Amino acid sequence: MMGRKGNLMSVRNDVKVLDATIRDGGLCNNFAFTDDFVKALYKTNVKSGVDYMEFGYRASRVLFDENSFGKWKFCKEEDIRAIVGDNPSDMKIAVMADVGRCDFKTDFIPKSESVIDMVRVACYIHQIPAAIEMVEYFHDLGYETTCNIMAVSQANLNQLEEALSMLGASNVDVIYLVDSYGSLYPENASALAKTYLEAAEKSGKQVGFHAHNNQNLAFANTIETLSYGVSFLDATAQGMGRGAGNCAMELLLGFLKNPKYNLYSLLSFIENYMLPLKEQGVQWGYDLQYMLTGQFNRHPREAISFTAEHRKDYCEFYKSLLDNF
Amino acid sequence: MMGRKGNLMSVRNDVKVLDATIRDGGLCNNFAFTDDFVKALYKTNVKSGVDYMEFGYRASRVLFDENSFGKWKFCKEEDIRAIVGDNPSDMKIAVMADVGRCDFKTDFIPKSESVIDMVRVACYIHQIPAAIEMVEYFHDLGYETTCNIMAVSQANLNQLEEALSMLGASNVDVIYLVDSYGSLYPENASALAKTYLEAAEKSGKQVGFHAHNNQNLAFANTIETLSYGVSFLDATAQGMGRGAGNCAMELLLGFLKNPKYNLYSLLSFIENYMLPLKEQGVQWGYDLQYMLTGQFNRHPREAISFTAEHRKDYCEFYKSLLDNF
Repeated sequence: MMGRKGNLMSVRNDVKVLDATIRDGGLCNNFAFTDDFVKALYKTNVKSGVDYMEFGYRASRVLFDENSFGKWKFCKEEDIRAIVGDNPSDMKIAVMADVGRCDFKTDFIPKSESVIDMVRVACYIHQIPAAIEMVEYFHDLGYETTCNIMAVSQANLNQLEEALSMLGASNVDVIYLVDSYGSLYPENASALAKTYLEAAEKSGKQVGFHAHNNQNLAFANTIETLSYGVSFLDATAQGMGRGAGNCAMELLLGFLKNPKYNLYSLLSFIENYMLPLKEQGVQWGYDLQYMLTGQFNRHPREAISFTAEHRKDYCEFYKSLLDNF
Repeated sequence: MMGRKGNLMSVRNDVKVLDATIRDGGLCNNFAFTDDFVKALYKTNVKSGVDYMEFGYRASRVLFDENSFGKWKFCKEEDIRAIVGDNPSDMKIAVMADVGRCDFKTDFIPKSESVIDMVRVACYIHQIPAAIEMVEYFHDLGYETTCNIMAVSQANLNQLEEALSMLGASNVDVIYLVDSYGSLYPENASALAKTYLEAAEKSGKQVGFHAHNNQNLAFANTIETLSYGVSFLDATAQGMGRGAGNCAMELLLGFLKNPKYNLYSLLSFIENYMLPLKEQGVQWGYDLQYMLTGQFNRHPREAISFTAEHRKDYCEFYKSLLDNF
């Protein structure tokens, strides 16, 4: 039985906080952040002690039309450099590459020439072989890598154990537990985290957690999995992210005991940059429709449409979920 | 070491859900609910399988002017009976009586003549002797009783153990752990719950939990303490309650596995009664100012003022909390 690592007063030096605001938040505004916004967030993250900042996806420009998305869907080197220069800070830069939606063999240069430090490979569980091919490619280019297995609440345990074993034999640095549907309770999340940790610790890898807030549990699940040894923690400013959003960075920074993390810069960023986004009508965050898809362990797409249509007929929505089981 | 009781698939027949919407929510609108609202909530709770409905406070009419508050600050027998008749349902009726703010010797009739089933006595830890006097008085009148020790995050452990021992020797039925400031993390809440449960189980009593949502942990803390044996669970429609509010009933009903609990009536109530309240400007729920008082383990009064003034200058608020330590 795996116990908790440390307690509520401990400084855990293995912990790494990753800001995913531009990447997961970009799903709420089609990646249309201004350079001013991204620069301010970069400076805020550096001041707050954040360890990694994810700038967005490096998506295929063959599959996706560059004119239909903001630049952070593609994360070109020059666009990141326009924000961070050569990144003269201790904070590392990450981008995400989705299996099947990324031209990884043509779109990445060696780490020695890139401003990027880490590539996070996102996949569904049946795509693990494809994900590992990408991980090895990025590893050979010199990048730190993660593998983020999405929608794990719908994977079966045998498949998951096989996937973790394959990742254990790969060169991936961090294996991510991803609660895509926000359906996990803390007891589920910690049980899964222990499964990931057991596999990861055998092969000297670390485990990360990426939460969604459908049942108002994103922060709770993050600190619960942390307590058992998960060390890479995703969060976003005001929880900005698809649907119900993610773990709020302000809650996480207020919780962590390492004095390198501080909250004040983030409060200022929220006042000056996040509140205007909300006022412009960009939508995310906990609401009943997301609670329902979370309780039903379902993709949030119907809840996102419900939100976009400004509907409030929760009873009809509930019935439509029953009909579509 | 006290283990978890049951698992995520268990039906725990000891669990009792208590709706505190009118009582804790009344702190947001000065108890000015219409009879139509309260009747609809009563019917909803009966249909949803809720075990207890708290109607409000029975506050002193000497200390508080009846014309300055809605009727649920006082919960007269005839006002409750106007809603529930003789309460021909399985759901029990509760009211709250605060130590020092209630004329309990003149304002309560014997249970045999009353529509009320349970009196919940709220106190701070130094008021335990006064609370026990009230508990014994209500017990002798024939009521079920609880003792709700508020602001436990600021009590010292020696005092708390003494209080629990005194309550163990009393006729109280349920001892409540109350996270008044919303400052507890799940690890704190479950550690405290274990302390309460050890004391309560010695004397055949049950333990309840009343959460506040300052750090978006009200639901998480409720189900965490539940998992270790807490059985009386407070919740409110849409989490309506002072400041950041309470555990949301809809999250709790969606979580509990006992088929007697169902969500649909509550969704309908929220659509038809709770959304209009919000539109009328009644304020409650998670926001950064409440997160900050929770992180600082402070009474939410400054955050409530900040909210009432529609302020958004979180940085100034943060600095004012630092100044007032």
